[in-house]
Amino acid sequence: MNSRIKKLQEQLAVRKIDGLLVTDDINVSYLSRINASESWLLVTPNKTFYITDFRYIHEVRKSLRRIQAIQYAVSIFDTVFELAAKHSVKTLGYDECHWTLSRFKGLKQRCPKSVKLVAANQLVESLREIKETTELNLVRAGLDIHQQALKYIKKFIKPGVSEVEILKRLEGFTRLRDVGFSFPPIVASGPNSSYPHAHVSPRKIKNNEPVLLDMGVDFKGYKTDLTRMFFLGKISNLVKDARDHVAEAQRRAIECIRDGVEIAVVDEAARNYLKSKKLDKYFGHALGHGVGLEIHEGPKLHHTVRRPLRAGMLVTIEPAVYFPHKFGIRLEEMVLVKKKGYEVISGHIN
Amino acid sequence: MNSRIKKLQEQLAVRKIDGLLVTDDINVSYLSRINASESWLLVTPNKTFYITDFRYIHEVRKSLRRIQAIQYAVSIFDTVFELAAKHSVKTLGYDECHWTLSRFKGLKQRCPKSVKLVAANQLVESLREIKETTELNLVRAGLDIHQQALKYIKKFIKPGVSEVEILKRLEGFTRLRDVGFSFPPIVASGPNSSYPHAHVSPRKIKNNEPVLLDMGVDFKGYKTDLTRMFFLGKISNLVKDARDHVAEAQRRAIECIRDGVEIAVVDEAARNYLKSKKLDKYFGHALGHGVGLEIHEGPKLHHTVRRPLRAGMLVTIEPAVYFPHKFGIRLEEMVLVKKKGYEVISGHIN
Repeated sequence: MNSRIKKLQEQLAVRKIDGLLVTDDINVSYLSRINASESWLLVTPNKTFYITDFRYIHEVRKSLRRIQAIQYAVSIFDTVFELAAKHSVKTLGYDECHWTLSRFKGLKQRCPKSVKLVAANQLVESLREIKETTELNLVRAGLDIHQQALKYIKKFIKPGVSEVEILKRLEGFTRLRDVGFSFPPIVASGPNSSYPHAHVSPRKIKNNEPVLLDMGVDFKGYKTDLTRMFFLGKISNLVKDARDHVAEAQRRAIECIRDGVEIAVVDEAARNYLKSKKLDKYFGHALGHGVGLEIHEGPKLHHTVRRPLRAGMLVTIEPAVYFPHKFGIRLEEMVLVKKKGYEVISGHIN
Repeated sequence: MNSRIKKLQEQLAVRKIDGLLVTDDINVSYLSRINASESWLLVTPNKTFYITDFRYIHEVRKSLRRIQAIQYAVSIFDTVFELAAKHSVKTLGYDECHWTLSRFKGLKQRCPKSVKLVAANQLVESLREIKETTELNLVRAGLDIHQQALKYIKKFIKPGVSEVEILKRLEGFTRLRDVGFSFPPIVASGPNSSYPHAHVSPRKIKNNEPVLLDMGVDFKGYKTDLTRMFFLGKISNLVKDARDHVAEAQRRAIECIRDGVEIAVVDEAARNYLKSKKLDKYFGHALGHGVGLEIHEGPKLHHTVRRPLRAGMLVTIEPAVYFPHKFGIRLEEMVLVKKKGYEVISGHIN
């Protein structure tokens, strides 16, 4: 039995809908456990259909267990509504986050009178927020490679080496391990570290400056995401203080983490500490985000979010300060929310 | 003067709208000529604003010419409507293909009464269909590397070598040339070639079977896309006939191409030929697609499309036949539409 689909089917009952259309590639892959592309799932209270076209149908049929593969020919909409009619789907849920206005127009046009379309948002994403042990094992395996990459790259981060050269070395390392990146790595030295999403440049690293490395490994679909700072030569007091304050903000946020704590409280623990040091205005982004099959997924750790963290959530904690054109400090770890606390699965706090 | 934005501004006049919101990353990059991410353009009849957040603003300000960079803080919607008010935008166009239902709800909620939102779809995509010389030069440079990759890989495609090994060799080749792939390459041998979008498998290539290689090179953002067949050992008459018929279908389609010809006519030239050989039912997809900054862009070459090809369009022509679980043949070239004919910019027709 596919427990993910079972949990989703429980949600259908809660929402009083008798069908859900899952169209997002990652959600389809998560539920069906096969890599999907341009294929949809129709989930009813007791059946699941994988709807795809002739390009994938033969491969999919070989892989699916307990999900029926259905081939559509001309219009995937027509196939959806044929299945809906056959399996008594009267209220069909769709996710407003995954339908463009133009695509949804097409769906509505094809929708028969017997079916009512109802918004049912982020149901699969909500399931994905709570990681299963097998998922965490994949993340941990990715982190293991990630840590090795950091250890490897450390010796190349020195004056005279360009950011691009560092990137090339990292590419070489991940290639040998047969993993990809979660996102294009950020290697930002000196003033470049003050741009939160700097492009890797040919700039050569100089002595006595900080280097920011934000990268992630993609291991079998699961992402890691860590930001580490490297300090070369003599660190100025300004840089050192900023680094210490960001580290303390991070420590304070992480120590709040446990099942049931409100997300805003965690963000504020970091933000208020930076405020006490008059540094909050240099910290312009959210404290962190969920990570898993996507590099950014739920929950978002923002000071406006009043819902609680739940055991099994995996989030980044990444406070920062950026002094435009001067330098920036960001420290990012990955933290697993536990029933009675937390686990920094990416290593140790500073 | 940015000629792309100028052409877009002419379209605003035609559509009688006095502002267009461009939110798609590729469209924003195309118009602004800087790599965009999570940034929007507001184009008015005589001004253009690049709206981004603090993560990118400092880098963007350094790069932009004749486009004003605007930083938003809390809500990008509010910044859009403040600019709209300041620059007398009464009718604001948005693209239904780039707005999800949920995002659009947010836009509508923030939209003041003084502004009317109007659908204005695919305006930038239409511009992108007609390639400029500089764009074609980038595609040609990509094709040059692509052809070298084909020449290089040919000697590894032999019995006993697995599909995955071929893929690794290709990865090694593109890496050395510092280019990426347009999409994950398809290496499909024997029966795998009958799945149009086969996943690369550990299957070892056998003698006397066809091998399908569909790949593309990404050179400075511009994509190439070619499918080549390799035949090992002794080819059966069945395979040979299929190959000859697909090649003839391709030749017939390409020979129709010139400025002004209806797209359906080109598709039918290939499809009707395959029909005459009773092979059309094995050809389940469209004849081709535009290619450029995206691997699939306009125009789509489908038998239902009645609009004409225009000089400057760059399209793939890729007829195919697939015999499930047996074998498949696909031949794909890239063709530039010219005033009085065509140019097969990927090489020669078979």
